[in-house]
Amino acid sequence: MTGQGEPPRPAARRPATVRPLPIAVDTMGGDHAPGEIIEGAVDAVRAHGVRVVLVGQAPRIQRELDRHGFAGKIPIVHAEEALDMGEGALASWRKPKSSIAIACHLIKQGRASALVSAGSTAGVVATSRLRLKGQQGVMRPAIAVALPTVPRPTILLDAGATVDVKPEGLVQFAALGTAYAQILLGVERPSVGLLTIGSEPGKGNKVTKRAFELLSGGSHGIEFAGNVEGHDLLGGAVNVVVTDGFTGNVALKTMEGTVRTAFAEIRAAMTASAPARVGALLQRRRLQELRDRLDPDTYGGGVLLGLNGTVVIAHGASHARAITSACELAHRLASGRIVERIREQVAATRTSRFGRWTHAERDSQDKPDKSRSPEKPADAPKPAEPAPQPLPPAPEPERTEPPALP
Amino acid sequence: MTGQGEPPRPAARRPATVRPLPIAVDTMGGDHAPGEIIEGAVDAVRAHGVRVVLVGQAPRIQRELDRHGFAGKIPIVHAEEALDMGEGALASWRKPKSSIAIACHLIKQGRASALVSAGSTAGVVATSRLRLKGQQGVMRPAIAVALPTVPRPTILLDAGATVDVKPEGLVQFAALGTAYAQILLGVERPSVGLLTIGSEPGKGNKVTKRAFELLSGGSHGIEFAGNVEGHDLLGGAVNVVVTDGFTGNVALKTMEGTVRTAFAEIRAAMTASAPARVGALLQRRRLQELRDRLDPDTYGGGVLLGLNGTVVIAHGASHARAITSACELAHRLASGRIVERIREQVAATRTSRFGRWTHAERDSQDKPDKSRSPEKPADAPKPAEPAPQPLPPAPEPERTEPPALP
Repeated sequence: MTGQGEPPRPAARRPATVRPLPIAVDTMGGDHAPGEIIEGAVDAVRAHGVRVVLVGQAPRIQRELDRHGFAGKIPIVHAEEALDMGEGALASWRKPKSSIAIACHLIKQGRASALVSAGSTAGVVATSRLRLKGQQGVMRPAIAVALPTVPRPTILLDAGATVDVKPEGLVQFAALGTAYAQILLGVERPSVGLLTIGSEPGKGNKVTKRAFELLSGGSHGIEFAGNVEGHDLLGGAVNVVVTDGFTGNVALKTMEGTVRTAFAEIRAAMTASAPARVGALLQRRRLQELRDRLDPDTYGGGVLLGLNGTVVIAHGASHARAITSACELAHRLASGRIVERIREQVAATRTSRFGRWTHAERDSQDKPDKSRSPEKPADAPKPAEPAPQPLPPAPEPERTEPPALP
Repeated sequence: MTGQGEPPRPAARRPATVRPLPIAVDTMGGDHAPGEIIEGAVDAVRAHGVRVVLVGQAPRIQRELDRHGFAGKIPIVHAEEALDMGEGALASWRKPKSSIAIACHLIKQGRASALVSAGSTAGVVATSRLRLKGQQGVMRPAIAVALPTVPRPTILLDAGATVDVKPEGLVQFAALGTAYAQILLGVERPSVGLLTIGSEPGKGNKVTKRAFELLSGGSHGIEFAGNVEGHDLLGGAVNVVVTDGFTGNVALKTMEGTVRTAFAEIRAAMTASAPARVGALLQRRRLQELRDRLDPDTYGGGVLLGLNGTVVIAHGASHARAITSACELAHRLASGRIVERIREQVAATRTSRFGRWTHAERDSQDKPDKSRSPEKPADAPKPAEPAPQPLPPAPEPERTEPPALP
């Protein structure tokens, strides 16, 4: 590790933020791995003071660090294997020594606070669910994505981690999203909307109607603002929009596809005639900025919430800049004690008077479902614990430092 | 009726299209009823030769027809009541003499072939389900919407009629969409995609995974092209996209909201500086056309498929032009024998070797679900049959005429 080695100070009483352990960066996932990944991580260290540990093929990482003049300045943990971008959930069982699995192991050992990967979403989600496990009290994890609304982002979750969700699961997603929005947006009581097909209480399918009842029950620490619809996603009506992973993924990809189509059409319209081409030249810069803001490659990936560790999933096509942003986000979430905040939020929903959850219900929600077998094969062997290559000495815990980020 | 009164000729053997009975137009639904509705219907008669019958407050319709110089040229059927735009499904039980209920009655009596309404979607769907009933073999109806893809529209269904759907229901929606696309797009074997969250077969939730298996079984008359994702909706990859009414409604509204946001941002970008304003002037016409194409108010409403009669639901904000289009669409679908085509397509899915449906399954799908009570109250009285005011004499059937539309 970087070995700055300050002597540990006595822990302050629940500081709002802590100086987190390093961020484990998977250098082997993504279309531009490892070059752009390592460059992005180096920038996060150099320009933003984020501490990172690079996980992947050690010799290759070494060469890249040399090239950036950072040899010996960033710790490296070797990983023999990598998940291919095409590989899905099954690979997480087959490859216990993948860079993602090793990075998860660092978190479990208390040597890293979070994981950043631009690998395939299915592979990252499956591996980190398997290695980090769900945090206590959380039925199922969710991927939170920040939509580019103005003046500040809207959090949409779940964007695809859990496709079949019960009403109680949606209430938990509301708790996860509340904790995330508190840190990302700096809002004390973020407003939460339930994505459905009409603003009135009775609208929706069986699951959302019941979730509406549960969320309307009050006294669970969630600022529930009622139902929202598809056209509210970019309207900024609420801070957090809650939905199941199926609907959320469809909505997100529909939004991306619509933005892409709209801009393609606008480009065609603007270059179709000589006067229009002149007009296009005059506007080029403004429109480029706008496109960037609405482009999913720019506004980045998602955060997997609800596990024993924070996982930032960068877009597969990420270049260095996106990786730097992902490292900063992971650092900020770890500093904000996201895992503990989620524990508190979820506990509030479970102890509130509307709560009717029993262990039986929780178990039935957790039970592996055979129709979802590619994600968790019923007959798969118990995964071997990854045996990472010799680790650098674990740093002293530094949980009492002043927050590194404002 | 218009009483053109040609002597009936012997029916040809299953003609591809027929000259349909008149279209029943609900003059009382919509933000601009009845003025714009009647104007649109008059235009459909005048410019496109569509036969219509106007349902609503007779004296008011009479005045409007006088104004257009069409007094006595279009038949009128009086209806005492109307569903308000804010009224939902329950109103269909409470108001058996609403203009929509009377229009449905005309279809049941064989005096009209289809219904056009710009009333509230919930009210139109509930009333027509109650009055027309599902056609034989169809578990649940679906709303089909034509998305403005190029070079030709993509049919998305269900856009909101049936929110909780079983896998077998999605297969039926594929059959409904196939029949609709054959008529609307003129494609003999339209390709059908299943909306889910990944292109690979194993992707999706429980319902779509099973639907994928059923659709992949082949020999059911459906040209199944596999899974499609949200960003394929405007990509024109397939002719028909099948999904449940919840996901379809969220996707459609997400698309609408994204288009609205993108254009608002573009307008702001284009008028933010003097050079940009000059550019905007040069492009105004092209961009206006583009916006119209992507604007849901322009590309119109949906068609409720699967009942004993065709129901075209125009946008609530429809002006005369949209009503004219809706009348033409209803005429075209009736000419193309949409109800019979659906019967054939659905029969093919039921007799194919993959079909495993039993009466028990069909019954469980049809069973009213208490959690959906606002749509169908368990203790509601059996609805009284509407007693329409004196009807004009039923026209002779004219099912052997050559098609009126190309």
